[in-house]
Amino acid sequence: MVTGRSDQPRSGCAINAAVEVIGDRWSLLVLRDVMFGNRRYFRVLQEHSEEGIASNILADRLRRLVAEGLLTRADAGRGRRAEYSLTEAAIQLVPVMAVLGQWGARHRPTTPALRVRAEVLADGGPGLWDDFMAELRAEHLGTPVPPRTGPTVGERLAAAHAEALALDPNQERG
Amino acid sequence: MVTGRSDQPRSGCAINAAVEVIGDRWSLLVLRDVMFGNRRYFRVLQEHSEEGIASNILADRLRRLVAEGLLTRADAGRGRRAEYSLTEAAIQLVPVMAVLGQWGARHRPTTPALRVRAEVLADGGPGLWDDFMAELRAEHLGTPVPPRTGPTVGERLAAAHAEALALDPNQERG
Repeated sequence: MVTGRSDQPRSGCAINAAVEVIGDRWSLLVLRDVMFGNRRYFRVLQEHSEEGIASNILADRLRRLVAEGLLTRADAGRGRRAEYSLTEAAIQLVPVMAVLGQWGARHRPTTPALRVRAEVLADGGPGLWDDFMAELRAEHLGTPVPPRTGPTVGERLAAAHAEALALDPNQERG
Repeated sequence: MVTGRSDQPRSGCAINAAVEVIGDRWSLLVLRDVMFGNRRYFRVLQEHSEEGIASNILADRLRRLVAEGLLTRADAGRGRRAEYSLTEAAIQLVPVMAVLGQWGARHRPTTPALRVRAEVLADGGPGLWDDFMAELRAEHLGTPVPPRTGPTVGERLAAAHAEALALDPNQERG
């Protein structure tokens, strides 16, 4: 999916425009890990990758995602790790992740611990997606933290994941 | 994204499971054209492709989509064209197309005539997506035609597209 990436899209279609940027498996998985796993550093992204992403692919996709305006990279100075943050455009991919995860959970083989977050997100619908996007904006863009009326969406997703893992500790960890 | 396609997915994650099947730009665009353009034949898919899909890529993606259970191929006999139909799993990608198109229309350069259908679909929300899926089931799976209470979703999408084209006839046709 390298062709046409930085140039004008190949057509004016909105679906094509989206998949020219994120229609690459690894790009979407890197965004997923920053978004749901709050993995903000190169080494953390690589070591915790459920799909075993290779370091050269990870480096390439991080570079592209920064160039495409989906991640920002804060260089912390010589010898210190650079931190990646989601941009507003990337945060608005929450509904895409939700419906993709819902489809994957229904139609493809998955494991409960890695599926349960997609289910919670899909079941919550647009209201929950908005709440999660507000939390991500506070975390990644420094907007004011939304008022707390109970566990955050991030906490609810983590709790559902931990519970599914506890029920079957032999499966892959997320 | 050939690796792992037919085997077990690389992880049990529901988002990964989805992108291992449809996280390839051309696969999703072929499904889009069958779904929104009702293009059911190889030659029609190739000749009308807004992105200029090459015939070898189209042939490969059609084969894969059949193997993955997203399309069925009805062979009409020697010398006659084979017709492709969406499966139930493919029809359930309507929400994915809707939110992807919404994101693309917001965050990437697009043209009105090729963007307007994505906007109608996104604005309609889950109720409209359900209606459109029912129409696709009648068209592709032979289920009973849903009761008509006005223009179908397919007709509404086509009308919005035609209107946008009429306002600016020099843009790409969809």
